[in-house]
Amino acid sequence: MLYPEPIERLIEHLSKLPGIGKKTATRLAFFLLNARQAYVGDLSQSIAEIKDKIRLCSTCFNITDIDPCHICRDEKRDKNVLCVVEEPSHMMVIEQAYPGIYRYHILHGVINPIEGIGPEEIRIPEMKERIIREGIKELIIATNPTIEGNTTAHYIAELTKSYQVKISRIASGIPIGGDIVYIDPLTIKSALDNRRNLKEG
Amino acid sequence: MLYPEPIERLIEHLSKLPGIGKKTATRLAFFLLNARQAYVGDLSQSIAEIKDKIRLCSTCFNITDIDPCHICRDEKRDKNVLCVVEEPSHMMVIEQAYPGIYRYHILHGVINPIEGIGPEEIRIPEMKERIIREGIKELIIATNPTIEGNTTAHYIAELTKSYQVKISRIASGIPIGGDIVYIDPLTIKSALDNRRNLKEG
Repeated sequence: MLYPEPIERLIEHLSKLPGIGKKTATRLAFFLLNARQAYVGDLSQSIAEIKDKIRLCSTCFNITDIDPCHICRDEKRDKNVLCVVEEPSHMMVIEQAYPGIYRYHILHGVINPIEGIGPEEIRIPEMKERIIREGIKELIIATNPTIEGNTTAHYIAELTKSYQVKISRIASGIPIGGDIVYIDPLTIKSALDNRRNLKEG
Repeated sequence: MLYPEPIERLIEHLSKLPGIGKKTATRLAFFLLNARQAYVGDLSQSIAEIKDKIRLCSTCFNITDIDPCHICRDEKRDKNVLCVVEEPSHMMVIEQAYPGIYRYHILHGVINPIEGIGPEEIRIPEMKERIIREGIKELIIATNPTIEGNTTAHYIAELTKSYQVKISRIASGIPIGGDIVYIDPLTIKSALDNRRNLKEG
C-alpha cells in the first residue's frame, strides 16, 4: 500500500469513472485532500443524492426531479406532436435548437437485434399507449441516422400504420458549416437524396 | 437550466475538479446516474471522509491516517538518516525505489522568495528541532533540481553547519534509458560535473 488506506480507497473509486485512469484518480484524490471542506462536502453530497433525486418522467421518460417533468407540465407546447428521441441528451439538443416547442418521448435506446434489444426493451409500448391516450397526431422521429436508428424509425412507422398519425423523419445531410470534402459517401448520398428545390424551373 | 437541478449541481461541482471541463463533468454525472447504487454510495462516502481521516504525521509530516505514520513507526528503518523531500508524493517515489530503508522529513514546499515562501513557511523549523531531538547524523536532501529546490538544499546545509550532521544532495543527470540528444544543456552540465570514475588510470 503506497498511500494511507482512505486515499487508496478514494483513488480506487475514482478510477472506476469513465476516462479516469489511476494517475488522474491520484491527482484528483490529492486535489480533494487539499480542497476546501465546503466544496468536498458539496461534491460528496451531490453524488450521494443523484440517484435518489433523479427519476424518469412517467409520461415521456425524460430524466427529472419532479414527475411529470417540466416539459410535460408545460402547457404551451403543442399537444398533438411528439418528438421521439433515443436518449435524454438527444432531447436536450433539440430543445436547444427549438426551445419550448415540442413534447418528447424518450425511447432509452434503439432496436438492435444483434444485442438482443427488441421494441419491448425500449419505451415503444409506452409510446404506442401514449399516442392513443393523448390523441397524438404527428410523430417526428429523431433517432440517429444509424442502422439501428433507421430500423427503429421504420418499426415505429409500421407499428402506427393503422393510426391517424403523420410520421416524419429528421433529415440527414451535410452539417451546417461542414466541408463536402470531409463528409462520408453515405451522408453525401443522403444529402443528395433529400435535396430541396430552391427555384422551380 | 438544461438538466434537472440535482444533475446541474453535480455537473457544476464535478467541473471544479482539475482537468475536468463541462463536457467531461456532464459525462461523469450521467455515468453516476446510471451506475450501481453501491458504487455511487462508496464514492460519495470516500470523498466525504478524505479530509476527516487524513492528517499529517506529527513527526515527518507525511500524509497518514494514523499518527505517527507507518513509516515513522517502522523500527527497522535507519534512525540516523533523514531523507528530506518537498512533497508526500516525492517520498512515495523514493520509497518505491528503496522500500523500507529511509526515514523522511516532508517540507511541504520549497523556499521561494518570489512567492513569499520563506524557511518558516515550510517544515524547516520542525526539521531543525527534529535533528537535535532524534540525534540525526545524516541528511539526504532530495528536493527537486530546480532553482527553488537547490536554494532550499543550500539553506538547510547552511542552517545545520554547526551540527555534527553529514549532508548529501541527490544527483541530477541523464535519466536511465534517456537519450543525450533530447536532454537540456543544464542537465548535461550536471551529468558531466557529477561524472564517476569507472577505471582509475
